Amino acid sequence: MNLTESDLAEIDAARGQSATTRRATVPALEAMLFTPVPVLDHGFVRVIDYMGDDAAVVQAARVSYGRGTRKVSEDEGLIRYLMRHRHSTPFEMCEIKFHVKLPIFVARQWIRHRTANVNEYSGRYSVMDREFYIPAPEHLAAQSASNRQGRGEVLEGAEAESVLALLREDAERNYAHYEAMLNEGGADPDRRGLARELARMNLTLNAYTQWYWKTDLHNLFNFMSLRGDAHAQYEIRVYADAMLAMTRAWVPASCRAFEDYRLGAAQFSATMLAVLRRMLGGEVVEQAASGLSKREWSEMMAMLE
Amino acid sequence: MNLTESDLAEIDAARGQSATTRRATVPALEAMLFTPVPVLDHGFVRVIDYMGDDAAVVQAARVSYGRGTRKVSEDEGLIRYLMRHRHSTPFEMCEIKFHVKLPIFVARQWIRHRTANVNEYSGRYSVMDREFYIPAPEHLAAQSASNRQGRGEVLEGAEAESVLALLREDAERNYAHYEAMLNEGGADPDRRGLARELARMNLTLNAYTQWYWKTDLHNLFNFMSLRGDAHAQYEIRVYADAMLAMTRAWVPASCRAFEDYRLGAAQFSATMLAVLRRMLGGEVVEQAASGLSKREWSEMMAMLE
Amino acid sequence: MNLTESDLAEIDAARGQSATTRRATVPALEAMLFTPVPVLDHGFVRVIDYMGDDAAVVQAARVSYGRGTRKVSEDEGLIRYLMRHRHSTPFEMCEIKFHVKLPIFVARQWIRHRTANVNEYSGRYSVMDREFYIPAPEHLAAQSASNRQGRGEVLEGAEAESVLALLREDAERNYAHYEAMLNEGGADPDRRGLARELARMNLTLNAYTQWYWKTDLHNLFNFMSLRGDAHAQYEIRVYADAMLAMTRAWVPASCRAFEDYRLGAAQFSATMLAVLRRMLGGEVVEQAASGLSKREWSEMMAMLE
Amino acid sequence: MNLTESDLAEIDAARGQSATTRRATVPALEAMLFTPVPVLDHGFVRVIDYMGDDAAVVQAARVSYGRGTRKVSEDEGLIRYLMRHRHSTPFEMCEIKFHVKLPIFVARQWIRHRTANVNEYSGRYSVMDREFYIPAPEHLAAQSASNRQGRGEVLEGAEAESVLALLREDAERNYAHYEAMLNEGGADPDRRGLARELARMNLTLNAYTQWYWKTDLHNLFNFMSLRGDAHAQYEIRVYADAMLAMTRAWVPASCRAFEDYRLGAAQFSATMLAVLRRMLGGEVVEQAASGLSKREWSEMMAMLE
Repeated sequence: MNLTESDLAEIDAARGQSATTRRATVPALEAMLFTPVPVLDHGFVRVIDYMGDDAAVVQAARVSYGRGTRKVSEDEGLIRYLMRHRHSTPFEMCEIKFHVKLPIFVARQWIRHRTANVNEYSGRYSVMDREFYIPAPEHLAAQSASNRQGRGEVLEGAEAESVLALLREDAERNYAHYEAMLNEGGADPDRRGLARELARMNLTLNAYTQWYWKTDLHNLFNFMSLRGDAHAQYEIRVYADAMLAMTRAWVPASCRAFEDYRLGAAQFSATMLAVLRRMLGGEVVEQAASGLSKREWSEMMAMLE
Repeated sequence: MNLTESDLAEIDAARGQSATTRRATVPALEAMLFTPVPVLDHGFVRVIDYMGDDAAVVQAARVSYGRGTRKVSEDEGLIRYLMRHRHSTPFEMCEIKFHVKLPIFVARQWIRHRTANVNEYSGRYSVMDREFYIPAPEHLAAQSASNRQGRGEVLEGAEAESVLALLREDAERNYAHYEAMLNEGGADPDRRGLARELARMNLTLNAYTQWYWKTDLHNLFNFMSLRGDAHAQYEIRVYADAMLAMTRAWVPASCRAFEDYRLGAAQFSATMLAVLRRMLGGEVVEQAASGLSKREWSEMMAMLE
Repeated sequence: MNLTESDLAEIDAARGQSATTRRATVPALEAMLFTPVPVLDHGFVRVIDYMGDDAAVVQAARVSYGRGTRKVSEDEGLIRYLMRHRHSTPFEMCEIKFHVKLPIFVARQWIRHRTANVNEYSGRYSVMDREFYIPAPEHLAAQSASNRQGRGEVLEGAEAESVLALLREDAERNYAHYEAMLNEGGADPDRRGLARELARMNLTLNAYTQWYWKTDLHNLFNFMSLRGDAHAQYEIRVYADAMLAMTRAWVPASCRAFEDYRLGAAQFSATMLAVLRRMLGGEVVEQAASGLSKREWSEMMAMLE
Repeated sequence: MNLTESDLAEIDAARGQSATTRRATVPALEAMLFTPVPVLDHGFVRVIDYMGDDAAVVQAARVSYGRGTRKVSEDEGLIRYLMRHRHSTPFEMCEIKFHVKLPIFVARQWIRHRTANVNEYSGRYSVMDREFYIPAPEHLAAQSASNRQGRGEVLEGAEAESVLALLREDAERNYAHYEAMLNEGGADPDRRGLARELARMNLTLNAYTQWYWKTDLHNLFNFMSLRGDAHAQYEIRVYADAMLAMTRAWVPASCRAFEDYRLGAAQFSATMLAVLRRMLGGEVVEQAASGLSKREWSEMMAMLE
């Protein structure tokens, strides 16, 4: 994470500002506000703004002045109930805005979450940064033999060295050519400079971009559930993990309910439930007689371990 | 607008709270926070929470740390440029949450705006309020003769009296029957009480409901543009107007751009533009030779008046 | 379901039309096309149009010309895999359009599904039908004593009779007053007629409306999962059930996967999984020592029955 | 556009299939179905499926069986009315599905249109194609001097040659290294092969990807309006143009209304309207006394030329 002096000064200035508000305020998140948390080699996530807290979820679920709505339970009980029964709209009443620096190939996965607001740094308008993601040696994984979209063991020795060298050299060479084609400031008086919107196509997919990304708590949970999952690519999972830590500070009760009922939960199909009932009845069930495919069987066994 | 003592006490308590925050804060909107603004006979709108300000629009458009992005213009100039060129994503970076009390037939139009978050008071779970919208005499309009979905002149005399009496009596009788069917608290020991989710079907469409409604600034502008339009039904337009006043306090520069480029703007079709060019060239153009239908012609003339 | 002669003639005409197409076509759904299936006392659902079939899900998941994508499994296996692992985008590649007649209070729940396209019959522009939902005696349920938003036993005797009479009389009276206020065709020469957009507010929430509703298969599954659930109100559940039968005809393999992995499935929280593992290990677990609340415990036991 | 023998055979097979349907069918679009239309050097667009036609827009706007809705005008008149008055929901009732091959930097702009369904070829799962976009000499533009996100004149001579050589060499070298890192099929027995999801980051942003993209007619119009605009980047505009030709074949009346009221239309702000009125009144208005900025003034003059 390479921030310039002026970037750091801007962050300090933002952190130094202070105002009085009647709005719901969360001191634990205020403490984190604006500070970038490093992710990968040059990326980061930082919270820029937020709206609401755990109480806002409860307040929206009840709607104020509601005659007939007595406080049947503690707030956390209501939050857990809402999460368990998929009443998602109260969680939509909280909103958060992040500033994220991330490799382009990660951005391409991330943007698939459509219920969010995004402003990305524009390579048509501005010059892209000279920063690329190069995996740490321990994340330089071989193709998985069993899972077409997964990773196997870590590459080692000469192959690892050669891969890292190729990634680094290609990214740097392509960036140098990008700069040459741009000819910003007329460095080479014999060139007119290629349009930025064209030159950027020479960059590699591990080049870093950045954006403002804003979403509501329900859709943030969806994001963290899908991208924090073991099947997600490591390079996006680390962003989901960093955001989970921030979400815990922001809405602790909602986040506990999310971790219990969704992140740590498991879904059993109708067929799996039938197997489960036989097992709980004391029967020894084998895959062949379970009605499940081998793959489903092993997925079910994994859920029970 | 009939608020109970306990509602008013809750509002006062909310207005009395105060915290320190590093977030963008707008004093003019803070002053309005939580206070209901009356709309129609028993409805209201009040701001519950907000995120961002004019500067947040600018900051998102530029994305921080953007090398190559120099301040080419004042913030307001940039905001006007974004609005004029339909760059809508920076306006999505501001968010606002309202609490609204409104008649059900208005709620049914309002909910068609899909890009928003909503929590409505539940008639399955709670008892609905005994409040109905009865038009003020000056809004009791006859069916328009020329416009199938519009209003004509105001009803007067015996017809007006009879209509108001019917609306009032039917709403009150139906509510009384609703209450009787519910038999809340076992008032009538010989009844078990109809399920709330069924009894509510006896209410009329002018019964009031309420909800929390949260949206981003871009979609709020869309709402105000469509529902604040002269073609919108009066009963929803008054809500749009009340929200426009709040939006002016919140994001004055964005709101000025919206009023200039959208609310007060007019769209000329390709054919209309051709007519306009002929007129500006000094030609006297008649409808028959304009290429426009009579209806389009009169719409164009109205835009130029 | 009261269709006029001209409605029936229009349906017959639509069913009589025939064209040749290169598009994916599903004979079992073609057979149902345009025919209304009765729901509740005056409502219906009918399929108006559709796009895609089970094979379209598979084709989208694979994207054509994809080098490196060999057919590792049967199509149904792939569909089951996609459903199990929440790969929802291939199911979005199928689209279906319904014409639905439904009570307004049901429409108000239905419209909360935002990812859909809707055109509703306009009470501003047209006169509403004289049709109201009156529950069949066996669905006239008392308020549940244990569940604030649920139903208890069926009402009987004098209370049932009185409730049905109230519902019927109020709906009919209010409609008669609606008609009188409209004064369509100048029936009463002394009245000018109230604007349609105002008069409709006198109708009750069990009045029928109708709309065209179009959505993709993924969001249709979401709808059927939430509204076909035992916790959903009976009056919307019957629509979900009718649509499920149509979906089975349309995309049988996708629908089987949906019924196995979602409709008939159950989600166990992290805490419930821990309990399950102890039970499968032969331990006798009691609620008190389970880490689950009483409510969660009974929900878990219900899932295992 | 390089299609393999097997791709072409699959297209021929799809075009050869034929079925009978009761659905709305558009012969002019059927004739185009499945056939790829070349865009850029290796890209294409082809229609895979569609739902509805011009009549479906009309039918949805009217909702069948609507008492009180008489045919006041021809279908095209209604379609024009809907378009002019921003009644967008009837246009949402038509749906179309495309298969598109496009450079990744174009895909990154395209995906910003959120109201669409997308299935993209997966570089985690499959090996990417060896195809890159290299601009034709006449589109190799210099950076615009006046517009930070625009293009200026075409590069010529040595600079053009050098830029084209760099783009070509870098894309090819990076792809060769991608293949080497993958080591598919164990070509090099001393390598294990880097995971596909990692290796792809070495590709350049002009590498081609492909996806299935499905949207409704209203959102297709939005896409074509924004991306077919003169301010859009040339490389995405050519896709919008190709799709416009297909849309004309599909829904000719809706498309005519779109071209008149939106594509060829111009929006005048409140301030511009005031200037227009003065001009039409015979006054000679200068920028300085217009209330418009220089930039707005020149934009207004451009609209009137």
